[in-house]
Amino acid sequence: MNRTLYGYWRSTAAYRVRIALGLKGLEWDQSVIDLRFGHQSDPAFLKLNPQGMVPFLVDGDAGLAQSLAIIEYLEEVYPDPPLIPGTPVERARIRALAMTVACDIHPINNLRVLNYLRKELGQDEAGVNQWAQRWINAGFRSLEQAAQVSTGPYLAGNMVTLADICLVPQLYNARRVETDLAPYPGLLALEERLFRLPAFEAARPENQPEAVFV
Amino acid sequence: MNRTLYGYWRSTAAYRVRIALGLKGLEWDQSVIDLRFGHQSDPAFLKLNPQGMVPFLVDGDAGLAQSLAIIEYLEEVYPDPPLIPGTPVERARIRALAMTVACDIHPINNLRVLNYLRKELGQDEAGVNQWAQRWINAGFRSLEQAAQVSTGPYLAGNMVTLADICLVPQLYNARRVETDLAPYPGLLALEERLFRLPAFEAARPENQPEAVFV
Repeated sequence: MNRTLYGYWRSTAAYRVRIALGLKGLEWDQSVIDLRFGHQSDPAFLKLNPQGMVPFLVDGDAGLAQSLAIIEYLEEVYPDPPLIPGTPVERARIRALAMTVACDIHPINNLRVLNYLRKELGQDEAGVNQWAQRWINAGFRSLEQAAQVSTGPYLAGNMVTLADICLVPQLYNARRVETDLAPYPGLLALEERLFRLPAFEAARPENQPEAVFV
Repeated sequence: MNRTLYGYWRSTAAYRVRIALGLKGLEWDQSVIDLRFGHQSDPAFLKLNPQGMVPFLVDGDAGLAQSLAIIEYLEEVYPDPPLIPGTPVERARIRALAMTVACDIHPINNLRVLNYLRKELGQDEAGVNQWAQRWINAGFRSLEQAAQVSTGPYLAGNMVTLADICLVPQLYNARRVETDLAPYPGLLALEERLFRLPAFEAARPENQPEAVFV
């Protein structure tokens, strides 16, 4: 079956989907949408995903947008191993932790938003980083609390879940904007454990074929 | 059973949960967390929801954060009527439309973000509205496309779904920041249809007991 992930090495939302695909043991092709050159607005890509955003997953006949919607789909179609395990209450808690990243941090620090701060609001890199750190710290404070009270080695207990899948890419992004991570020992220890899992290691931005270091 | 929604009349995320509870035919008490006075940071509320955000739903013994996680929980525990119906692909599409609002518009225009623009970046109301309109228009363009190609009277076809639940509060917010909605005739027609449903009408901000008009 044809399975292609349209993404970009530095997109943290695409990074989430790479981890989820890997944890599910699925194989996929990667198609690079180079956000630096605005390729998300190319007519051919817009035809596929009118919203013009990555990630976008083609899975057989299905075209799927929005990283969390993609992962919920993977969870329903390829249930093993589960990434949102447990009772409805446990599943809600996992989703809430994931959304602390996917709703309350990431969208506010997305490339298009930072570009608006730079171009329309005249912010320099220090101003942009301060902006990004503000929302990262607000979210990380509650995620650190969650890590401290977790009943297992992962963010939501004994199993790797959607919450971990969202956390790791956000830590990568936090370093890019020079966030001081010292207040989050629980999250850093968790990250170290997660990178021992091949699906997390393989999904790292720097391990993508299109990664460039300038 | 005790069921209490901690919310605020103007919070569009709380508005989503009110609609969902109403569509499911559930009863609930409302507890007002007045965001104008920072009551989301009161110690008593932080004990309940360490993230200090609304909405927060107490459903019996369960405490649930994040509007979309709450609605997924309601969907699992009270499946009728379904708000995310269909095949995994159809469900993914509904979730993606919902996240176009819940991830790509709303968090960037949230009160705390607009306050940062005002206070830290010195934006006046025109600047703040321009900011908000930018992200609303980006999202509404693809939602309007979805409305135009919908195979039924609602955003994702023949049934009222999570996508409609997210759209209506975002239209309310769009008007607050003076967005020109003329480019979105499909969304406006859809909104009119949805307000004929009692759950949408009852959930309107101006129909909440704590609504004040100043």
